[in-house]
Amino acid sequence: MFGKFITLEGGDGCGKSTQLKLLAEYLQSKNIDVVLTKEPGSTDEGKILRELLVTGDKDKFDAISECLLYYADRRCNLKKVVWPALKENKWVISDRYADSTEAYQYYGYNKRVDFQTLKSLYKIVAGDFKPDLTIILDIDPEIGMRRSFAKSQSMEVKELRFESRQMEFHHNLRQGFLEIAKREPDRCVVINANTDIETLHKHIIETVNERLGV
Amino acid sequence: MFGKFITLEGGDGCGKSTQLKLLAEYLQSKNIDVVLTKEPGSTDEGKILRELLVTGDKDKFDAISECLLYYADRRCNLKKVVWPALKENKWVISDRYADSTEAYQYYGYNKRVDFQTLKSLYKIVAGDFKPDLTIILDIDPEIGMRRSFAKSQSMEVKELRFESRQMEFHHNLRQGFLEIAKREPDRCVVINANTDIETLHKHIIETVNERLGV
Repeated sequence: MFGKFITLEGGDGCGKSTQLKLLAEYLQSKNIDVVLTKEPGSTDEGKILRELLVTGDKDKFDAISECLLYYADRRCNLKKVVWPALKENKWVISDRYADSTEAYQYYGYNKRVDFQTLKSLYKIVAGDFKPDLTIILDIDPEIGMRRSFAKSQSMEVKELRFESRQMEFHHNLRQGFLEIAKREPDRCVVINANTDIETLHKHIIETVNERLGV
Repeated sequence: MFGKFITLEGGDGCGKSTQLKLLAEYLQSKNIDVVLTKEPGSTDEGKILRELLVTGDKDKFDAISECLLYYADRRCNLKKVVWPALKENKWVISDRYADSTEAYQYYGYNKRVDFQTLKSLYKIVAGDFKPDLTIILDIDPEIGMRRSFAKSQSMEVKELRFESRQMEFHHNLRQGFLEIAKREPDRCVVINANTDIETLHKHIIETVNERLGV
């Protein structure tokens, strides 16, 4: 595979979606073919899984079945979007990837799924493949939740399953992303997202240039 | 857990659904509380997964994502139907369980999913739990497919995703079920299903009486 795979991670309201688009525009301005994707829900089948996962009662799936569905969606994303694009020398930027599953299920929910289970699922779905660069947008959960809430006023209310969780969860989640970055410094870069859109974008392109040499 | 967990397995047209009902009636006549279930699709969420799995283009999911979805459905079945019923001392009979996933994915499709992956998924979803008795209804695939086709004339055409596969697949599938039974003789009993409904029912209740002492 010749393209590059960049994943954007972080808690609610960290600005991933906006930054994803700005990064794509920057790379395109450098004549790089860019494919944007997201998890869950990048494929037709994934959209149905996303609908299952993000709507309705927050306890309708237990931790294990939830992880299996996220990994089924991930497999569809890899097979139908990510891997074909990388083979065509394109760069792929994904709004969330496996670190989100780990941060939410293992750290956010206080180890409700054990670490080995998550590692086994990753291996089954992706083998040894991993992102070339993972950018973790680190935000104070209080600020992130305020942003996320403001955004939710203009989005469909049914997608609020995640936003309605307790603040403790969001603090655990943040710690989780930081732990992952500490464990895999070659792949992960943490960027302070408690800032304005332009400053954050500037830090992101500096990181991409430094790590992947645009 | 105090109830008993019986699974019925076998290729298309082997008579599972009919025999499941007859076995339930027999057990109820012996004052046993019986819960019937099936895979995929025993729960509200499972029904959506079943719909995803059994309709549409047969290649819309690759082998791995298909297995993850079957195991997500299985987890829902265990958590919401099977385990609660067993705890209430009920007997649970399931129309298909994990042996179907193995027979279809590993044997039917010629090892398109490796054995270790299936074992890992089982462990993640069910731990050390397994059926008290698995009855494999063994049928000549030519006869089974003829029965299944006759039945399909009166069912919704959209559920034909599986029935449209090649005969070779169905022969591999049959061998798969027989291999599983040979590997786990304490749990599995193979019963010849190339026979009429009453004879087959008689053999099934003989087996249940012998193995589980009704």
